Amino acid sequence: MAGIAFGRFDDSFSLGTVKAYLAEFISTLVFVFAGVGSAIAYNKLTTDAALDPDGLVAIAVCHGFALFVAVAIGANISGGHVNPAVTFGLALGGQITILTGIFYWIAQLLGSIVACFLLKAVTGGLTVPIHGLGAGVGAIQGVVMEIIITFALVYTVYATAADPKKGSLGTIAPIAIGFIVGANILAAGPFSGGSMNPARSFGPAVASGDFNGIWIYWVGPLIGGGLAGLIYGNVFMNSDHAPLSNDF
Amino acid sequence: MAGIAFGRFDDSFSLGTVKAYLAEFISTLVFVFAGVGSAIAYNKLTTDAALDPDGLVAIAVCHGFALFVAVAIGANISGGHVNPAVTFGLALGGQITILTGIFYWIAQLLGSIVACFLLKAVTGGLTVPIHGLGAGVGAIQGVVMEIIITFALVYTVYATAADPKKGSLGTIAPIAIGFIVGANILAAGPFSGGSMNPARSFGPAVASGDFNGIWIYWVGPLIGGGLAGLIYGNVFMNSDHAPLSNDF
Amino acid sequence: MAGIAFGRFDDSFSLGTVKAYLAEFISTLVFVFAGVGSAIAYNKLTTDAALDPDGLVAIAVCHGFALFVAVAIGANISGGHVNPAVTFGLALGGQITILTGIFYWIAQLLGSIVACFLLKAVTGGLTVPIHGLGAGVGAIQGVVMEIIITFALVYTVYATAADPKKGSLGTIAPIAIGFIVGANILAAGPFSGGSMNPARSFGPAVASGDFNGIWIYWVGPLIGGGLAGLIYGNVFMNSDHAPLSNDF
Amino acid sequence: MAGIAFGRFDDSFSLGTVKAYLAEFISTLVFVFAGVGSAIAYNKLTTDAALDPDGLVAIAVCHGFALFVAVAIGANISGGHVNPAVTFGLALGGQITILTGIFYWIAQLLGSIVACFLLKAVTGGLTVPIHGLGAGVGAIQGVVMEIIITFALVYTVYATAADPKKGSLGTIAPIAIGFIVGANILAAGPFSGGSMNPARSFGPAVASGDFNGIWIYWVGPLIGGGLAGLIYGNVFMNSDHAPLSNDF
Repeated sequence: MAGIAFGRFDDSFSLGTVKAYLAEFISTLVFVFAGVGSAIAYNKLTTDAALDPDGLVAIAVCHGFALFVAVAIGANISGGHVNPAVTFGLALGGQITILTGIFYWIAQLLGSIVACFLLKAVTGGLTVPIHGLGAGVGAIQGVVMEIIITFALVYTVYATAADPKKGSLGTIAPIAIGFIVGANILAAGPFSGGSMNPARSFGPAVASGDFNGIWIYWVGPLIGGGLAGLIYGNVFMNSDHAPLSNDF
Repeated sequence: MAGIAFGRFDDSFSLGTVKAYLAEFISTLVFVFAGVGSAIAYNKLTTDAALDPDGLVAIAVCHGFALFVAVAIGANISGGHVNPAVTFGLALGGQITILTGIFYWIAQLLGSIVACFLLKAVTGGLTVPIHGLGAGVGAIQGVVMEIIITFALVYTVYATAADPKKGSLGTIAPIAIGFIVGANILAAGPFSGGSMNPARSFGPAVASGDFNGIWIYWVGPLIGGGLAGLIYGNVFMNSDHAPLSNDF
Repeated sequence: MAGIAFGRFDDSFSLGTVKAYLAEFISTLVFVFAGVGSAIAYNKLTTDAALDPDGLVAIAVCHGFALFVAVAIGANISGGHVNPAVTFGLALGGQITILTGIFYWIAQLLGSIVACFLLKAVTGGLTVPIHGLGAGVGAIQGVVMEIIITFALVYTVYATAADPKKGSLGTIAPIAIGFIVGANILAAGPFSGGSMNPARSFGPAVASGDFNGIWIYWVGPLIGGGLAGLIYGNVFMNSDHAPLSNDF
Repeated sequence: MAGIAFGRFDDSFSLGTVKAYLAEFISTLVFVFAGVGSAIAYNKLTTDAALDPDGLVAIAVCHGFALFVAVAIGANISGGHVNPAVTFGLALGGQITILTGIFYWIAQLLGSIVACFLLKAVTGGLTVPIHGLGAGVGAIQGVVMEIIITFALVYTVYATAADPKKGSLGTIAPIAIGFIVGANILAAGPFSGGSMNPARSFGPAVASGDFNGIWIYWVGPLIGGGLAGLIYGNVFMNSDHAPLSNDF
């Protein structure tokens, strides 16, 4: 297993790396614009009714499809993380340096924030809904839910994208990543909101000015993603293959 | 990066190019017949009720599935554009000549118009619904929405289909193109209508004789698609690969 | 283009061909059991309410998913036709002999009939719903609708499965075939029923003893599938490649 | 065809085999957490209303997406069974030894049980719903339904994953396996519950303490999966290829 590496400034500012930051920015913007947009669309169509199974399907399918696309369009340039918890999990597994990872985070957060302000503008100032806990769900329960579902997501990233033994890697990784997020939203949506992604939660918080409970969507996903990186990297990966960020 | 090229008449009338026009015509007909048909089906099943989240899911899934198919069945013959904004974005990125692109547009528009008249005939003369803005959405907001979501679509075309470094290109491109349209309709449907495609909007306008607001679905998608072509072509593409339209 | 061939009895009774008939029987059984089952499930959950957009999504997604599977599991053995209109279209394009095609038809019809009697048994004798025209839809309109949507289906079979230039053939063909049926049901369901497949319509007619309008689901799909075979085979296919049924 | 083999203890405790047990545990946990979670989510959003077509779509899509992912993330390590009926069917077809299969079962059952206790914890103690028969459905009918739909599932596993003639095996197998489960739930959900998987049924029974009717979800899937293994293994498979569990 490759170890955690801080990295060198030179590597984090090469032409290829700067293109990767731009790719993460665009991928996250595309994903958050569609995903948060589908929640605003539900609110508009139902005049802000409480979430029902129809709406959950609409929002889950939209996130699943859009994340598939965001990963696919970034895959060859940045690796298609689109999510600080994925970047964190890959750093803990030695697949990306800490320094480059920090710039990935900045690009992802900016992409999400820009997406949410664009949504506010084009919908005529409608509320940008933030992630929040369902009725009767405590903060610890919400954090544990986010840990579990983000573990599933980052484990999926490792198992489908990080393993060089696979042949059809370029297709199965983005489908699996999109579908696990769609499935987990169908399960976790009414409880923790089903974020799995600090950037997906942070943009709406900034655009709406409402940071209530935002810590849940940093702590849960980073713990879950980190655990997946440590477990998959140490148990399942071969020690002799090249780092992920260059070749997937 | 390859530059914009007008092209020669000879190339635009070779046997292969004429087959490409026919393939664009059929692909667009298949896509628009299913997509617009799903909107008519919703109106019939609900006796023209206002759109609700159920209907949005039905229409978005139908467009996503049908566009995937339309791209896949055209991919080897015409490149599977099925959309004047895609053709425009590829022309700006130097992937198709202006002249051939004009014939692609004509084929796409004819395919959409024929699809809509066929729908009118087989549904017993039911109204063919046109794209329009949601309540409280201004024209500028609608145009900007269409710019953003078409940018996402054409960026996806470039990132998944135009990059010769990819191995499993033939599968991931049509899936990604279909899914980004499905996701964007789930987000933009209640606001701008979620067209991303002047041909998809033009056919219903001709069949219903209602051209109200049609300019929005030309201006928005062409600006968004053009921006994607310029940005992806100049920033992310290698300068030394062969033009796209021949080999994707 | 390869011409239409009647075929020899020897070829239609080789070990490989008999396995192909069994594969068609099982694939069609699996497809029809799930597809018709989803319609019975809708009727049970809603106490036989009229179809609404929810139900249309459930039925369309089920048919799309199940047909993808039916084609995928038959692809290497029989080519995964699962549909007399597909077999007919491939025979007109010279991809399968008439004689082998007749046995394919028998296997497909038997698979559908067995599926419907099994459904009747395991649901405690609930009605097996047959395909029928929507309110206000005439027989000619229904036939034309079935012609158009089956043309789209069989054209998709040719364009994704029949073209040996493709690399990732094994994956994209069943996805495209499943998704075009899902999309077309979302459009045509409330009008013609959205069959595209005489076997899918015939099994429920036999199990329920109600053959009312069954001719529509033979005439429409066979004309549409035949047209697709003639057009694709004559316009788009190379004349020098091997017949389809052996290698797709 | 390879015969049934009991296996040696040494082979069942190699490093690779122990990793396979862990992979089965994690894959089943991920699948059951999302799948059962979607049923709890439906109950919460509707205050325990009876299942309707909306809910059936949400639950079926969640199971389909999550199973695709569970199979994909386990494919290279354990083969991605995620289901005792699949393991049983593969053992009868000679693809895995009995001894290794028993440890697979233990890992799958533990994964499901842990998933259900986690769901109970993070949802604040909400009821974990068990599989059960629909109103008016007898036990024999339920068993036969489970036999048929599990036959379809395990036949799909064999046809898409077990056949070394295929090229794009790594992608089509998990998609087909996920989609057949999604389609079969849309058909069988209101009748037998649509389990196809003793582990999926056993975890909720343990977590809720309600073992009522659990035998149906062992007997039906094991008979259906076993039949598929015997038929596919004896009729369609070549006798000279390597066992499945090592290379799919």
